Amino acid sequence: MKKLNVAVAQHHYSQSYADNLDKNREQIISAAKQGADLVLLPELSLSHYFCITENPVHFDNAETIPGKSTEVFQQLARENNIVIVTTLFEKRSEGIYHNTAIVCDKDGSLAGKYRKMHIPDDPGFHEKFYFTPGDQGFKPVSTSIGKLGVLVCWDQWFPEAARMMAMADADLLLFPSAIGWEPDEDATENQRQREAWITIQRSHAIANSLPIMVSNRIGLEATDDANMQTLFWGSGFIAGQQGEILQQCTSDKAEVIMTEISLDRTKQLRRIWPYFRDRRIDAYQGLLKRHIDE
Amino acid sequence: MKKLNVAVAQHHYSQSYADNLDKNREQIISAAKQGADLVLLPELSLSHYFCITENPVHFDNAETIPGKSTEVFQQLARENNIVIVTTLFEKRSEGIYHNTAIVCDKDGSLAGKYRKMHIPDDPGFHEKFYFTPGDQGFKPVSTSIGKLGVLVCWDQWFPEAARMMAMADADLLLFPSAIGWEPDEDATENQRQREAWITIQRSHAIANSLPIMVSNRIGLEATDDANMQTLFWGSGFIAGQQGEILQQCTSDKAEVIMTEISLDRTKQLRRIWPYFRDRRIDAYQGLLKRHIDE
Repeated sequence: MKKLNVAVAQHHYSQSYADNLDKNREQIISAAKQGADLVLLPELSLSHYFCITENPVHFDNAETIPGKSTEVFQQLARENNIVIVTTLFEKRSEGIYHNTAIVCDKDGSLAGKYRKMHIPDDPGFHEKFYFTPGDQGFKPVSTSIGKLGVLVCWDQWFPEAARMMAMADADLLLFPSAIGWEPDEDATENQRQREAWITIQRSHAIANSLPIMVSNRIGLEATDDANMQTLFWGSGFIAGQQGEILQQCTSDKAEVIMTEISLDRTKQLRRIWPYFRDRRIDAYQGLLKRHIDE
Repeated sequence: MKKLNVAVAQHHYSQSYADNLDKNREQIISAAKQGADLVLLPELSLSHYFCITENPVHFDNAETIPGKSTEVFQQLARENNIVIVTTLFEKRSEGIYHNTAIVCDKDGSLAGKYRKMHIPDDPGFHEKFYFTPGDQGFKPVSTSIGKLGVLVCWDQWFPEAARMMAMADADLLLFPSAIGWEPDEDATENQRQREAWITIQRSHAIANSLPIMVSNRIGLEATDDANMQTLFWGSGFIAGQQGEILQQCTSDKAEVIMTEISLDRTKQLRRIWPYFRDRRIDAYQGLLKRHIDE
């Protein structure tokens, strides 16, 4: 049986790179000590969620991949014999920046990267200002522990993305995220949003018979004038191939969750629930349109 | 505000056409008396779930659409001023049969039909023997109360189907179903299956910001020699545009559930969660493949 121990880490990020790195290091070491083969950190795990507003100064913090921060994570992966997945603010050239997931293998090699394909833009989440949409498509990253279908945050609302990762033989889906509430929104609406976010990601596990890992940050982050605030809702989780939640983080505490997942379960499920056999690829052309006009 | 009262009916089906029709009639009248604009019956609501085994004798029960059973539902729709959605075993020609949803409008007209596109085949669900896959694509049916994106049972596992209905401006997604457990499967696995079925359908509401209605039958149905049995798990439900369950049936009782849904909520949600703005239609070509080979 092909089993993996996988961990999800969450904590509160500050504006200090050194402080964020320290917290990440501590949680990576904790996951490795518990026996994790893989640890998923949140999206943009070395910075505040700067997309809360549009300010060109933040471009100064973008880095090439590979680059300084990538090397730090590669070293942590090697030292702790653990696969690390997170995202960095990538500078690709003057005027082209991406929100890019890196996958560092146990031996410290950079196994691959994924540039976020779907870019959000709404109040408090001005990502279209900072990030050029990815142009590498939906390709799993091959590692020593399997093929990782890494997608990033907003990608999670698009079943198309998870489907294509699965069709390219991903063994596991991963969603590093940074998502939260407007603090003055009503509690019922907040609850619906968090539950929708959990449900849509569980559905990718189900539709594709793949285990899934989701990470998120916690805590309040605000613009300097507190004009815009986001309360990140944590709640990262690990689910099995039928969408069953195996472990889940709280919405407000720093923590590392870990559980064992069975990759063989995918094979068993796809024999008796054979969705890939029955996809109507002769009738899906409309998916390539913006809208299906009458 | 554009609001609708919608109802889902479930009961135990027998091998008697007359008995099944009586039960359906009673539940349609009950839904109408409660003020429902629309009632969703389960899949194949005039028969036993004959696909539990492969027996050519069942083809004798297939009918043209329009035809006798369609007319019965059209009359019930007119008499009760209610939209009725269910599926029938359609005979299209010698050798071409479909599992076809009919939509009868309040005035008794046949507003349209949808031929099930994804056809399952697994032990106890031998639908590929009986049903030719639909060839009309994913087109919502226009009615006096809105455009109904009717999909049928196995379609529910394919996010592609719900997406295309939404892209063609469906106001509401409907899934008449016939799904159940192998009675001797273990309880934990059964629970995972039912929960996966609920979750994947809630996810179609979420991914497309549309309300959703799901119906299913209840009770044990078996082959004559009881060699194969299915315990249908009921649990039909009505959910809002964020996948929040508004009403849900039990897993084992005949009942009619009803609730009010707001179609305007779709417009509000799509402005602040604009998934359709951000779909990467330049990068989805892989969805038209069977498998994405390296």
